[in-house]
Amino acid sequence: MAKRITLTFPDGSKREYDAGVNGLDVAKSIGARLAQACLAIKLNGNLMDAFLPLDSDGTIQIITFDTPEGKEIFRHSTAHVFAYAIQELYPDAKNTIGPAVEEGFYYDFDDLPATPEDFEKIEAKMREIVKRNESVTRIEMTLAEVKKTFAKNKYKIEMADEFSTKGEKVTAYKIGDNFIDVCRGPHVPMTGQIKAFKLTKVAGAYWRGDAKNKQLTRIYGISFPEEKQLKQHLALLEEASKRDHRKLGKELDLFMFHDWSPGSPFMLPKGTIIYNELLSFIRAEYKKNGYDEVVTPQLFNKALWEASGHWQHYKENMFLMNVDGEEFSLKPMNCPSHVLIFKNSTKSYRDLPLRIADFCMLHRNELRGVLGGMTRCRKFSQDDAHIFCTPEQIAMEIQRLLDFIKHVYVDVFKFEYEAKLSTKPAKAMGADDLWQKAEKGLADALDKAGMKYVVKPGEGAFYGPKIDFDVKDALGRMWQLATIQLDFQMPLRMEATYEGPDGTKHNPVMIHRAILGSLERFMGVMVEHYAGKFPLWLSPEQAKVVTISEKSEEWAKEAVELLKEAGIRAKLDNRNETLNKKIREAELEKVNYICVIGEKESADRTFNVRSRDDKSQKTMSLADFVNKCKEEIRKKQ
Amino acid sequence: MAKRITLTFPDGSKREYDAGVNGLDVAKSIGARLAQACLAIKLNGNLMDAFLPLDSDGTIQIITFDTPEGKEIFRHSTAHVFAYAIQELYPDAKNTIGPAVEEGFYYDFDDLPATPEDFEKIEAKMREIVKRNESVTRIEMTLAEVKKTFAKNKYKIEMADEFSTKGEKVTAYKIGDNFIDVCRGPHVPMTGQIKAFKLTKVAGAYWRGDAKNKQLTRIYGISFPEEKQLKQHLALLEEASKRDHRKLGKELDLFMFHDWSPGSPFMLPKGTIIYNELLSFIRAEYKKNGYDEVVTPQLFNKALWEASGHWQHYKENMFLMNVDGEEFSLKPMNCPSHVLIFKNSTKSYRDLPLRIADFCMLHRNELRGVLGGMTRCRKFSQDDAHIFCTPEQIAMEIQRLLDFIKHVYVDVFKFEYEAKLSTKPAKAMGADDLWQKAEKGLADALDKAGMKYVVKPGEGAFYGPKIDFDVKDALGRMWQLATIQLDFQMPLRMEATYEGPDGTKHNPVMIHRAILGSLERFMGVMVEHYAGKFPLWLSPEQAKVVTISEKSEEWAKEAVELLKEAGIRAKLDNRNETLNKKIREAELEKVNYICVIGEKESADRTFNVRSRDDKSQKTMSLADFVNKCKEEIRKKQ
Repeated sequence: MAKRITLTFPDGSKREYDAGVNGLDVAKSIGARLAQACLAIKLNGNLMDAFLPLDSDGTIQIITFDTPEGKEIFRHSTAHVFAYAIQELYPDAKNTIGPAVEEGFYYDFDDLPATPEDFEKIEAKMREIVKRNESVTRIEMTLAEVKKTFAKNKYKIEMADEFSTKGEKVTAYKIGDNFIDVCRGPHVPMTGQIKAFKLTKVAGAYWRGDAKNKQLTRIYGISFPEEKQLKQHLALLEEASKRDHRKLGKELDLFMFHDWSPGSPFMLPKGTIIYNELLSFIRAEYKKNGYDEVVTPQLFNKALWEASGHWQHYKENMFLMNVDGEEFSLKPMNCPSHVLIFKNSTKSYRDLPLRIADFCMLHRNELRGVLGGMTRCRKFSQDDAHIFCTPEQIAMEIQRLLDFIKHVYVDVFKFEYEAKLSTKPAKAMGADDLWQKAEKGLADALDKAGMKYVVKPGEGAFYGPKIDFDVKDALGRMWQLATIQLDFQMPLRMEATYEGPDGTKHNPVMIHRAILGSLERFMGVMVEHYAGKFPLWLSPEQAKVVTISEKSEEWAKEAVELLKEAGIRAKLDNRNETLNKKIREAELEKVNYICVIGEKESADRTFNVRSRDDKSQKTMSLADFVNKCKEEIRKKQ
Repeated sequence: MAKRITLTFPDGSKREYDAGVNGLDVAKSIGARLAQACLAIKLNGNLMDAFLPLDSDGTIQIITFDTPEGKEIFRHSTAHVFAYAIQELYPDAKNTIGPAVEEGFYYDFDDLPATPEDFEKIEAKMREIVKRNESVTRIEMTLAEVKKTFAKNKYKIEMADEFSTKGEKVTAYKIGDNFIDVCRGPHVPMTGQIKAFKLTKVAGAYWRGDAKNKQLTRIYGISFPEEKQLKQHLALLEEASKRDHRKLGKELDLFMFHDWSPGSPFMLPKGTIIYNELLSFIRAEYKKNGYDEVVTPQLFNKALWEASGHWQHYKENMFLMNVDGEEFSLKPMNCPSHVLIFKNSTKSYRDLPLRIADFCMLHRNELRGVLGGMTRCRKFSQDDAHIFCTPEQIAMEIQRLLDFIKHVYVDVFKFEYEAKLSTKPAKAMGADDLWQKAEKGLADALDKAGMKYVVKPGEGAFYGPKIDFDVKDALGRMWQLATIQLDFQMPLRMEATYEGPDGTKHNPVMIHRAILGSLERFMGVMVEHYAGKFPLWLSPEQAKVVTISEKSEEWAKEAVELLKEAGIRAKLDNRNETLNKKIREAELEKVNYICVIGEKESADRTFNVRSRDDKSQKTMSLADFVNKCKEEIRKKQ
């Protein structure tokens, strides 16, 4: 009888198989659909090809496209199929590297004279390879074998040379008999699994990213197991590109950028209205929640950052300068200045919790290359606050914050969101026991609130663990916005104390928190989420009063003034243009209500109000329209 | 017959006198009171002792204490009388220098063991000298004579040595026969004129201000022609010191400073309320006046400052730093960033006037030694705006600004103010004809508005002339707050253009303007003006609800919540302390209304409301009190 092995599945169940079984066979033993979806396996926690034999007991997980690892393997294999197609169509092209990346995959080639016009032809060849449903196999090669096989491709030889420095063999993957690539794997078992793919763009790239080397042709693509998924993805990409906040921000005159201040948005008048509305909204919430607002300096002596620990742990992100012959920095965070405020007067336990809020500008020296519109800025402001409390108050304060976040994201913005608990990073300060206490404090609060979360090991701030909240936008994309961070370190390092009921000094605990996060980033996300069609309370232009002819100009002018006095952001369009043109332009500006005034409306002192959202048209008196708007603004609909 | 001379007076009238007449005689010829008040004269525009003979025709002005020159001479002479008294009381003391300064005068002595306890004795000696009404005379001395006369005073010899480098004689002033001082003068004719004086403080000072030299004793004093003026002045000083915004800011928890961020105020929660109320007030005015608010970056590449001219004319006031290997600066002014916004899209004459407002933080590298509380900061924000307009629109825009300033300062803050027109400075950019045009533009607008002003030659900004507004506070002190600056240069240098009705490109004119000026400085001035007793709309704590006993606690707690919901900044004092103590503390906090709740009020759901300002007491329902407050806030009373 053949040797038998026992495999344990993620749900704890166990099954026995003949030794030599492979992952694909195991998947088949469970079901045909799982076998079809099986891209690779995880054996005892390590990724492995599904077509390699298994010889001993272990834990097994079938890797499908639903997992991050599955997506990566799937797209990496697609890159191989793509290179295979290129080899058939462009025999002189030399493939170099071809990894999976966030947006799909790419492959870099030398001597590949392809342009987007050739994509269709290449995709047709890829479809042939997929249709042939060729098997993927894994082999090991000596360096000598590689040099012989890839005699015409110096890049593969150079890479194999590096991989095999210790004289070890290198792995390579074959598709059928005609394509081979030096590669670590793993890969999907059959090309037939790669049902849906699309090449998306061509870019230049240097061999090993070094501009001194030859420029290669990089072709990007995306792939899915099902055609339907690809279509959905392409539609999403198209929608996302229409909603790109950099594009809409420009079209709608919300903000601008200038080379002379990289990474620092200029909020134009319309963007400033949104920015100020967000501030007013958060300020009103602060009043209800017992926060005190402060305004703090921008520039601080190095001594502050040494005391807080930023100098040791965050210096490379700070803008440094010389002031009065000493080292100063623009502040990247508000926390240490709030500790100075805390220390400005004697504090007793009766003063706690003390919630200090601050909308001051922050500067972080992000690399110029990673700056991107409003979502990655060097200069930004947060709806930042720090809560100083006793250890006993932590649970209650975190609970209040979870409620606050829920109110803002669910009640007001109607978002879904997820929580992530990030724990001690490699570059951290403070004793382990305090870290464990803080991590437990956050986990307990989440548990008590019945809130699900995933743990992100090592992703905490250098001074403490944190809960981050990922918010899902209208296109289903996740954006990390709110954060709650628990910090036992900074009050200790900066010697902040309060007098306890026992008459002795204690260090308070500090909770760092932001609800919207960076206001700039939040605005960028909102522009994309709403596709520029802001709800009335946030909208820079709430009403446009449009005249049909100059006969209705008198009432139109008066109406605009009356609307403004009532607090509605209204503008007049009395240009000598056609009504259609004026309405079309107001629609492009995404004005919430277009109030058309003709002779009849002029006589009755009414408007014909067209709603941007439900496309309804209704004749209304000014008072009725004002009341409708005020109610909509009050409800933040 | 003796030689006759003709003197012309400021009003154009002429009088004849015998040659040899002196200023005092001339004053006498006009009236005994003028003679008594005559401290010196201005002959042909030059200051001169009133006791020196006049030999030829000329213009004459009698200098009295009412003029800045008169005050300076009077106090300089007081310093001599003071040194005379020291000579009699402390024969070993060596006088060095003794000028008039803004706060009065001082005299520095070596070997003077006097302390404030000795002031009375010294003042008594000074009174003796004044009572003797000794004459002041002017003599000329050779260096040899000085060395002989001041044999025991190396300082006077050192100074005389410097004065007479060309072998010229030096001047000296005698009082009677017993006191002589090397001095340029002029001085009052008789010690009897110095009727009222007071020594105010002792300080250390180094000879020639150099810490390597010996430390001297500096004694400060103040003097007036009348006792009544001195008393008023001392009362004012006492009141001003009580109102010192640094002191009150600390007592009332409005703001704080920290050595780690010199010159940068931290607005504490109560200060932030005032700051935000001022912003809201100005924002509401902007809505009425057609301004658009923007938010701009803090850090700009040197290229921007070179384009605007700040690099060439203002660099020493800027905080510089290295970003991405290039020179950057924190912005000291908003103007160039507003030009970038102007240039962001094509502009036509129909877009003008364009009024761009900005409350962003500014940083100016003031010398650390001159930083002082909120009135001289390194970091501050202005209610800044720039108006881009056509040359034809200048007059109307300036007129609107004069109205705006009048509304804010007269209607709202009930201030008096004065205007100053400052013209082209030595360090200026741009062609002379544009400067003249701009200066005339401002002068014409002031004339048209019927507004009086003084001209301050050479005190304009480097890019254009300006009108500054000095506002008179409750103590009669003048503070420069608002400013209007006319600028033909920056749009030209930065190539900002609009398309005119003629279809060609033109440079707009730029008006730089601030109404409150620096918000920090304005707040500092307001703290002193109101002595911390802010009007209700600006007050950080509008109402304090005070319980008489715990029996009234329930209604008190509910009342505070209801007040807060109604938008009134209310706090509860339900401590177990006496009513008197609680009221006294609320008064020290300068709370506008103290709402006392006893058993009767609890039963009726009312308060006994005590007004901070008129000390009235009145029992009111919550609704009546809220309405009263809202009305007071609306009227900004």
